Amino acid sequence: MHPEWGKVAVFGAGSWGTAFSIVLADAGNDVTIWARREEVARAINEKRENTDYLHGIELPPNVSATSDVQEAFDQADVVVWATPSQTFRENLVAWAPHLPADAVMVSLMKGVELSTLNRMSQVMEQVTGAGPERIAVISGPNLAKEIARREPAAAVVACADEQVAVRLQRRVHSPAFRPYTSVDVLGCELGGAYKNVVGLAVGMAVGLGFGDNTTASIITRGLAETARLGMKLGANPLTLMGLAGLGDLVATCSSPLSRNRTFGERLGRGQTAEEIYASTRQVAEGAKSCASLRALAEQSGCDAPIAMYVDDVVAGRMTANEMMDAVLARDTKAETD
Amino acid sequence: MHPEWGKVAVFGAGSWGTAFSIVLADAGNDVTIWARREEVARAINEKRENTDYLHGIELPPNVSATSDVQEAFDQADVVVWATPSQTFRENLVAWAPHLPADAVMVSLMKGVELSTLNRMSQVMEQVTGAGPERIAVISGPNLAKEIARREPAAAVVACADEQVAVRLQRRVHSPAFRPYTSVDVLGCELGGAYKNVVGLAVGMAVGLGFGDNTTASIITRGLAETARLGMKLGANPLTLMGLAGLGDLVATCSSPLSRNRTFGERLGRGQTAEEIYASTRQVAEGAKSCASLRALAEQSGCDAPIAMYVDDVVAGRMTANEMMDAVLARDTKAETD
Repeated sequence: MHPEWGKVAVFGAGSWGTAFSIVLADAGNDVTIWARREEVARAINEKRENTDYLHGIELPPNVSATSDVQEAFDQADVVVWATPSQTFRENLVAWAPHLPADAVMVSLMKGVELSTLNRMSQVMEQVTGAGPERIAVISGPNLAKEIARREPAAAVVACADEQVAVRLQRRVHSPAFRPYTSVDVLGCELGGAYKNVVGLAVGMAVGLGFGDNTTASIITRGLAETARLGMKLGANPLTLMGLAGLGDLVATCSSPLSRNRTFGERLGRGQTAEEIYASTRQVAEGAKSCASLRALAEQSGCDAPIAMYVDDVVAGRMTANEMMDAVLARDTKAETD
Repeated sequence: MHPEWGKVAVFGAGSWGTAFSIVLADAGNDVTIWARREEVARAINEKRENTDYLHGIELPPNVSATSDVQEAFDQADVVVWATPSQTFRENLVAWAPHLPADAVMVSLMKGVELSTLNRMSQVMEQVTGAGPERIAVISGPNLAKEIARREPAAAVVACADEQVAVRLQRRVHSPAFRPYTSVDVLGCELGGAYKNVVGLAVGMAVGLGFGDNTTASIITRGLAETARLGMKLGANPLTLMGLAGLGDLVATCSSPLSRNRTFGERLGRGQTAEEIYASTRQVAEGAKSCASLRALAEQSGCDAPIAMYVDDVVAGRMTANEMMDAVLARDTKAETD
């Protein structure tokens, strides 16, 4: 164990939580993954592999797992949340009493809570009472499978307290993973949530057979839509042009590995959201966040056609084909109007 | 022929000039393509196809071709330049005496002249003496083969005179091609030139076997580098976040059809620029513009690592592998420093 560092607890043994545990271990941390299912924790400890989500990737020796919450928190000075966004609050309410009092919390989650329109940092603050110096976000172009294979990647570590961001940066800096600091928690969270929704729209275009000119236009409009809402809410527009905005968006939209793009492709080929839910284990966060981002934009008086149309398609009120017509058929005008 | 419109002359029978002629024809214009080689003009007129560059695409009846400059200009009120950037000036000097006095000129070219560091609009102005109300640029995520297949696409029509931009917008608005107006000629030209250079860098990463996290990071840094230089030179940063900046960049970097990305891939797999030149007919503009953009950035006191490294690789002073190390190995710091 590192002489000055505590352990890192990673809550959530999905593909991203597990891949990020490899980054943390490579950066010199002792990592305990908390897995809901006992058999997942056992497989990680015994087979050194998360067979369900990262098949074929050997976990480093300084990663262990448990399904016991208190054991996961034991000696942790950094706690990483990598669970689905929509159930995070109720989980956190159960976990919070065991949380080490000074631990810094890092969200890897990329959703906006449907019932409250809160971002994950807001949920953390409300449930645990932690101040902004204990609440951080890590986000960027980080497809889990590539990270797990230790392909080079960069990301943003955001915390309102810059010194904490710098401290966390050291904790997650591995040979393959290059973190940049930021104080714009809101911008990172919004970029992360919006890119899933734009990824769904791009997936729909791909599923319908559209080419790279069309998908590039959707990405461009999607980023403009994200920046519009972000600036209204107080984000730094440079965050949205950076790794946690544009970077994450492009990686999601380019990759056949992205679950949001894949979900969109299946919508584009005519499946309903229910049919897709029924046949996949993985969560496509964008299928929920489209409704929250749409509502957030409405609340802020912002035009958000992509979130709106994606929400309509996911809810079955519109076909993917009708959505593409609507997106492509806006009046010609000045680009920046 | 349209009752109020003159003809459109398109100079250059490469894939983009030919594909754009289809857009113009679909928008209701009579189009004359000027081709350097008589046999290309004849094939277009007789076989209704540009066999060399757009094989299998039937040209509309209102497109014809000639290798005679005066015939091409005859009755034209719009002249479109779609020739390689580095030889444009010397060609234009020969063509200019025949140019109709009031014709609006539209550049589809995406290069910066090596010997002078001039953009194509500056070359037009210097050679023809035309005012800014006769100089326009069209740019966006417009892969020629997709445009030729009439897949939906959007682009920016930029002219310092907004009324001229609006008039041109009507001239190029077809069912599949959606033009937005702008007054930022410089921003469009810079975005168009820079994306080829970033496309080369992304291609190198792909050729070396890097994944989507890495390419997304290069795209993000590439756009930041473009915006940095653009703002220094007086471009509107929103142009660079729009279709002619981000949009064009993403299309080029995503598509296996892109010649700049393909050129980069071959560099990444270890071929030299000379070997690639020797085996391909198509020009990868970025292989020239990297040197001009690097010089332009140096002249402006701007940090431009991607243009610099790409230039070094193209010139054989650095391997693609060394370039990737250099790009990925910058010190960790605040993202927006």
